[in-house]
Amino acid sequence: MSKIKITETVLRDAHQSLLATRMTTDEMLPIAEKLDEVGFFSLEAWGGATFDACMRFLNEDPWERLRLLKKAIKKTPLQMLLRGQNLLGYKHYPDDVVNEFIIKSVENGIDIIRVFDALNDVRNLQVPIKSAKSAGAHVQAAIVYTVSPVHNTDHYLKVAKSLQDMGVDSICIKDMSGILSPYAAYDLIKSLKRALYTPIQLHSHYTAGLASMTYLKAIEAGVDGVDTAISSLALGTSQPATESIVAALKDTEYDTGLDLKLLAEIAQYFNVVKQNHKNDSDMSLLMSVDVKALESQIPGGMLSNLVSQLKQQNALNKYQDVLKEVPRVREDLGYPPLVTPMSQMVGTQAVLNVITGERYKIVPKEIKDYVKGLYGMPPAPISDSIREKIIGDEEIISNRPADLLSPQLDEFKNEIKEFIEQDEDVLSYALFPQVARRFFEYRQAKKYKIDSTLLNIEERVHPI
Amino acid sequence: MSKIKITETVLRDAHQSLLATRMTTDEMLPIAEKLDEVGFFSLEAWGGATFDACMRFLNEDPWERLRLLKKAIKKTPLQMLLRGQNLLGYKHYPDDVVNEFIIKSVENGIDIIRVFDALNDVRNLQVPIKSAKSAGAHVQAAIVYTVSPVHNTDHYLKVAKSLQDMGVDSICIKDMSGILSPYAAYDLIKSLKRALYTPIQLHSHYTAGLASMTYLKAIEAGVDGVDTAISSLALGTSQPATESIVAALKDTEYDTGLDLKLLAEIAQYFNVVKQNHKNDSDMSLLMSVDVKALESQIPGGMLSNLVSQLKQQNALNKYQDVLKEVPRVREDLGYPPLVTPMSQMVGTQAVLNVITGERYKIVPKEIKDYVKGLYGMPPAPISDSIREKIIGDEEIISNRPADLLSPQLDEFKNEIKEFIEQDEDVLSYALFPQVARRFFEYRQAKKYKIDSTLLNIEERVHPI
Ligand SMILES: [Co+2]
Ligand SMILES: [Co+2]
Repeated sequence: MSKIKITETVLRDAHQSLLATRMTTDEMLPIAEKLDEVGFFSLEAWGGATFDACMRFLNEDPWERLRLLKKAIKKTPLQMLLRGQNLLGYKHYPDDVVNEFIIKSVENGIDIIRVFDALNDVRNLQVPIKSAKSAGAHVQAAIVYTVSPVHNTDHYLKVAKSLQDMGVDSICIKDMSGILSPYAAYDLIKSLKRALYTPIQLHSHYTAGLASMTYLKAIEAGVDGVDTAISSLALGTSQPATESIVAALKDTEYDTGLDLKLLAEIAQYFNVVKQNHKNDSDMSLLMSVDVKALESQIPGGMLSNLVSQLKQQNALNKYQDVLKEVPRVREDLGYPPLVTPMSQMVGTQAVLNVITGERYKIVPKEIKDYVKGLYGMPPAPISDSIREKIIGDEEIISNRPADLLSPQLDEFKNEIKEFIEQDEDVLSYALFPQVARRFFEYRQAKKYKIDSTLLNIEERVHPI
Repeated sequence: MSKIKITETVLRDAHQSLLATRMTTDEMLPIAEKLDEVGFFSLEAWGGATFDACMRFLNEDPWERLRLLKKAIKKTPLQMLLRGQNLLGYKHYPDDVVNEFIIKSVENGIDIIRVFDALNDVRNLQVPIKSAKSAGAHVQAAIVYTVSPVHNTDHYLKVAKSLQDMGVDSICIKDMSGILSPYAAYDLIKSLKRALYTPIQLHSHYTAGLASMTYLKAIEAGVDGVDTAISSLALGTSQPATESIVAALKDTEYDTGLDLKLLAEIAQYFNVVKQNHKNDSDMSLLMSVDVKALESQIPGGMLSNLVSQLKQQNALNKYQDVLKEVPRVREDLGYPPLVTPMSQMVGTQAVLNVITGERYKIVPKEIKDYVKGLYGMPPAPISDSIREKIIGDEEIISNRPADLLSPQLDEFKNEIKEFIEQDEDVLSYALFPQVARRFFEYRQAKKYKIDSTLLNIEERVHPI
């Protein structure tokens, strides 16, 4: 039995989960070398929501952050999270943008790219995987974990085998809602390990208080690595604490070999960082154990969205009806995992169904596009009656959604040319046009000192 | 495999651990019937530090709390924690006081008495166990868990067998520092289950982030029950969350059968209670995962004591020396578990050894008494040289410490007779003379409205 590999998430998922993604590069660099000393399998440090947040909230260039981290972290592979053909945005991008983004990510310092598709439609991963491999990265393909009649072991095995055939270096089970229970994890990992030769990583969240138990059973089933967060930014909606997992495995056949004293120093550092951000999020809410998602299949973030939508419609009294409608809509749509963007889409449709008093009387464009196949293949087939109600006799595409998209890189380059200081700027703009433009203006202003109001600290930290 | 039994600690250990034992009876009663509906094996609701805290901080009669809880909780056994011959105090009491205290506890509503001795010296449990049995209680004897060369599986087996022979109804492994790791727990429970016919309960704390994993492995090893706390008062220095353990075991052979929806309502209630007490403790400190105790064997509470002792001596620069001295003193004294009162005693001796520059130059009376055997038998023998250094050629007692104590109940009764309103008052006074007298004065004043300043709210909540 080889040592269990630990991926430390403090620089990405942990602060995205607990500090509203507000950790700055300046807060990361002083501890970077110590993090590098620990001997983690990898440091998840980029991608996810951090790219957007860098520019939107911190007026930081995400590419510059990556370069600075790479300079300080010489031994430990740097890992990023990529939403497949969506990159770090919320829609499908053309292949030329996807390819260029991945090349630049690797060029600037990324060693491991964890890539996933919200529907586990592997066609949406073809180009990202190919680009990442030819750029020389370790490609870790992630499979979104959810619970439904079609999301059984066979589903995960089938997806995992396809990914293995596509030549990925490792596979991750991504339990973004923290609903994977210990004994379900044991069975799932056991099946995957039996069927695959590719190493398996497990990513979960402590939301329901299950994840450390789940990791333990996954480890007994043969998982190769798990994602943890240093204790001061662990638990709640973040990962299990690194030190607890290290301590639990110490002196067993699964020993991680990591040094608890070094980890304690790092925890101490991030405890101070956490204090810096105590007003950025409702920590006591985020830290509370919440098992409701286990019963309702509705993640916490989605619940608060539903409440605010109903409030806007002055229909908060319909809340219980909407809660009952969500799983029905999900079933109608072929059980998409309730993860961005599907959670928002399913929630909105449920609210509309209840408020209008007639199911699918009003259907937003995104749901129509989804039924047309423009997000990929739904996990289960959509019935003819639901399909007809939603898109009538409009055609359904059966090819890879991005096949319909023309190259766009030159167009983006042209639109933003006055601000370009590095090739990567085009990509920042392609993903977040308004946010990137605003950041470029700030950067220019700062460089040429032409408009000091743009440097106002207040606005920098709390933009509108 | 029978269902795993859950003891819910929210009314005792959870708020003692997280809310400085400040939960009031008024905060307990509105949720009591719902707690009773869940189907817990037991509700830990009395004893520990709550007795002292009732009178000292809340101006409440602990006996009246017990009676009110019993009235509202009709189905679920009420459980208390008792420190053996120390009862709920910090020294040995004569047998007549111990016997009377236990009789009154059962008379007022206690069904299960969990009783332990800090040194695992079963002689200190003889009288409490006998009294509890003849009073008709379920007697659960707890064995303190610690790590040392002599605290191996043999030690725990030997103690457990003695307790079984003494006729206890169940046995608890009490990991008050949360240092029992999952695989150590598996081995320990497995050994105990093989050797004993008595049911085994596991009590741990989430301090190091291990306890939920530890419970899972203990359950696989055959443990009969575990202690958990409802999620809003779980984790940190408290127990693992009830809902997480229930969810983890759901639909497995270990299913607890408890209803997650009912638990969610209870969690919601105690979330509000927690808010009421947000100024009573440093919650963010108590909630942080702390694995330092695993390495140093020094519990967190003890560290802050050492710091404050050194500050008083203006010798904070000796802190590292003291940290090194603590395990040496513990070794010298035969590896007492670092639990009240031994943690304070060992810590003070370590500070004295460092500050005076000569080990055991100054020795407090408590340490001398300990070496003389007045606390019970040290877990390992104390060497002749250490013994001589500490007590010279003074005699060591080899009998049960309480054998030396004469009956005292009548004396206490006499001292406090002007205030007695119920037989139980004598016991309150016997355990906490100053605190009880002050409470009796308050109670009398309130009854006869003779001195309204005593009813001042400010003082009631934050006494000096
Ligand atoms: Co995540
Ligand atoms: Co406890």
